[in-house]
Amino acid sequence: MSKKEVINPGWERYRRLTYSPAVRKGNLLFISGQSGAEQDPATGRLVVRGDIVAQTRIAYEKIRTILEAAGASMSDVVKTVDYITPDGLKDYRATAEVRRHYFKDSFPAATGVVVNRLLREGALIEIEAIAVVG
Amino acid sequence: MSKKEVINPGWERYRRLTYSPAVRKGNLLFISGQSGAEQDPATGRLVVRGDIVAQTRIAYEKIRTILEAAGASMSDVVKTVDYITPDGLKDYRATAEVRRHYFKDSFPAATGVVVNRLLREGALIEIEAIAVVG
Amino acid sequence: MSKKEVINPGWERYRRLTYSPAVRKGNLLFISGQSGAEQDPATGRLVVRGDIVAQTRIAYEKIRTILEAAGASMSDVVKTVDYITPDGLKDYRATAEVRRHYFKDSFPAATGVVVNRLLREGALIEIEAIAVVG
Repeated sequence: MSKKEVINPGWERYRRLTYSPAVRKGNLLFISGQSGAEQDPATGRLVVRGDIVAQTRIAYEKIRTILEAAGASMSDVVKTVDYITPDGLKDYRATAEVRRHYFKDSFPAATGVVVNRLLREGALIEIEAIAVVG
Repeated sequence: MSKKEVINPGWERYRRLTYSPAVRKGNLLFISGQSGAEQDPATGRLVVRGDIVAQTRIAYEKIRTILEAAGASMSDVVKTVDYITPDGLKDYRATAEVRRHYFKDSFPAATGVVVNRLLREGALIEIEAIAVVG
Repeated sequence: MSKKEVINPGWERYRRLTYSPAVRKGNLLFISGQSGAEQDPATGRLVVRGDIVAQTRIAYEKIRTILEAAGASMSDVVKTVDYITPDGLKDYRATAEVRRHYFKDSFPAATGVVVNRLLREGALIEIEAIAVVG
């Protein structure tokens, strides 16, 4: 059996956190929920506030970065969960274009639910993913 | 390694959607969240409104249909998540009879949480599942 | 392929429930959401009410007990989901110390979301886990 491998594409802030960006063991890769609400390191302000499509794009960029750090790609993603805030629900359907861009026409299984809120302040969506690599 | 395989039991509406009913890769099968809130194709009205037990039965019928399309069965299900709406919570305990019917006495691991709402209007419950086939 | 195996560390109350504490198939172990809101069998009262750190500790004790019953350990956990209630959010950051204690420095992938409520009355957090054993 393969060993558990923490996947971190060099993201320093995870040094202080009690979870990993992703973990791979054998051919399974579990990616932590990624939000699109990024903070500007200089000002501490959210880079994208109030735009769920832009946040979804950032979240998938981070997911792709993690996949590549694990030697995998978007086509290895078999399942996602979208956790959406009540504010994010209004324009949620518009995020479909982002999924078309990243997955082409081989879409993963997916669940989308509206939660009470997300941990990252200002986040309208958080996306977690499972990939089967190879 | 096996290829990623989209599982669709012939459900046309997924042609317009950006996720698959289920995805199989190797012996793992990931089933998207299934709600029991079906729309009548003629009238567009919900077939079952306000009855979480009936909705749970429809959701499990769809899960079973997906499993069979993947060459699997209910006994291969290892885990489910029930996402319940606040309105659905009232009669949630009564859905246990549905799980007894479908799983007999070999129950999967399961989590149930009350979310803010579900994407499908009128849905009181949405159920996602993971199966290990074979 | 291995058979599906229900994992139960001798918890009698699951005889009445329609899910298992955990299920193992092959090297995959799926652990049902564990809350820290325990009822005293004599009085029916919650043992720990209103303290998310104490509840998180109890939840992880149960997760560890399940892992050991399956021949696995905390280091096999690859992913967790924390479902937190609005009341639990206030002190959620303080639960990091519990994860440090149980995972040392090899943290799983994790997602944390604030749901509307949990099924177990009084529960501030419920934690589900996936482990890849061996």
